[in-house]
Amino acid sequence: MTELSELIEGILRFRDERDWKKYHTPKNLIISLLIELGELSEHFQWKTNEEILQSIHDERIKEKIAEELADVAIYLLLLTNELGINLEEAILKKIKKNEEKYPVDKVKGRYVKYTELMEQ
Amino acid sequence: MTELSELIEGILRFRDERDWKKYHTPKNLIISLLIELGELSEHFQWKTNEEILQSIHDERIKEKIAEELADVAIYLLLLTNELGINLEEAILKKIKKNEEKYPVDKVKGRYVKYTELMEQ
Amino acid sequence: MTELSELIEGILRFRDERDWKKYHTPKNLIISLLIELGELSEHFQWKTNEEILQSIHDERIKEKIAEELADVAIYLLLLTNELGINLEEAILKKIKKNEEKYPVDKVKGRYVKYTELMEQ
Amino acid sequence: MTELSELIEGILRFRDERDWKKYHTPKNLIISLLIELGELSEHFQWKTNEEILQSIHDERIKEKIAEELADVAIYLLLLTNELGINLEEAILKKIKKNEEKYPVDKVKGRYVKYTELMEQ
Repeated sequence: MTELSELIEGILRFRDERDWKKYHTPKNLIISLLIELGELSEHFQWKTNEEILQSIHDERIKEKIAEELADVAIYLLLLTNELGINLEEAILKKIKKNEEKYPVDKVKGRYVKYTELMEQ
Repeated sequence: MTELSELIEGILRFRDERDWKKYHTPKNLIISLLIELGELSEHFQWKTNEEILQSIHDERIKEKIAEELADVAIYLLLLTNELGINLEEAILKKIKKNEEKYPVDKVKGRYVKYTELMEQ
Repeated sequence: MTELSELIEGILRFRDERDWKKYHTPKNLIISLLIELGELSEHFQWKTNEEILQSIHDERIKEKIAEELADVAIYLLLLTNELGINLEEAILKKIKKNEEKYPVDKVKGRYVKYTELMEQ
Repeated sequence: MTELSELIEGILRFRDERDWKKYHTPKNLIISLLIELGELSEHFQWKTNEEILQSIHDERIKEKIAEELADVAIYLLLLTNELGINLEEAILKKIKKNEEKYPVDKVKGRYVKYTELMEQ
């Protein structure tokens, strides 16, 4: 099992060996995330959800989708690193916050907007 | 230190306690990723890269940006889980592939499109 | 009926009265397009396609969605203007190109990737 | 000069000749917008704003960017049509609303968030 910090290390090593840090401004990384999210979406564009889940049984398609998901993750890790944010900590904190925001007894089985919850 | 698999477990527990898996189709998760990437970008929209990096010194802004980054990461982990893809493995594989695709001696210090590299 | 050029004029007048052209760099406009596309998507996020089309019968929801569509269009027009591109011309040209790329007799009733068409 | 309604007509004719309306659900069109916005962004990814504006002088690059802008516009028009929204009207209304929201004397030369304007 790999920790997030080890993945980040591998990504930074790749970047620094190529001297590419200078390209990784916050805005360039946002635009890169957009591009990769778009490429990931191409695999889903005209398929139904059932067809998407079916297509995953084809190892070549699964491989390609895994690559696009990795690209999104890599740019996300580069951006969090550039901003000095600990993504693990941020995720754990956000789950906790969402747990308080969406109490099980009020939202179980149906999605309710937070603004609607507040009005109840 | 937390492993990716532990983060995913926490996210799935949150989801299943609320019986929200039914909402998490591949297309809904792509659209959610788009929404969260948009919300993250709002913190950067009219700022220069320097102003963005400066703004991070304000703890409240850093906190908000960390939350948006967490939201992107959470939906990304939900999508990889839904597709049965191991994100750690995918990232490590992609780094390796990129290392072969972009040899240090050909791209050091400058970004070169892969298609241009092929023509050399 | 309004022509595209008149819409652009109105948008540029709004911008110039506020001296905001300086913010409208290509990258800022791309990021703004991403943000507005995300906001538009929020109205669709957890709904089925049927629920979305149903929700439009509520005039307040239709109004809000129309506003988000307008925001996307406004930033798109600002970007084309900034790049000196005539959007009308580009659209007409692209339709023509697509007509040749996807011959009716080969794609009627089913979506076929261009790369697959080429192999036939 | 072409009116928006004529452009939409051309796009719908292309679609209907191929019997592709069935693919154009709101969610598929949102995902298509995301994909095309990503493809457009590829032309900007690692360039500075100055380099982007410079690159446009190359007619082949300008042509390609124009095509991507057209793709975004085409999917936007398809979505507005699917939702029964008049985009011209929506744009004119939004400009008017923004004019009231951002009074020239309060925002001239600097971008101010609407929420900050409210606090003044």
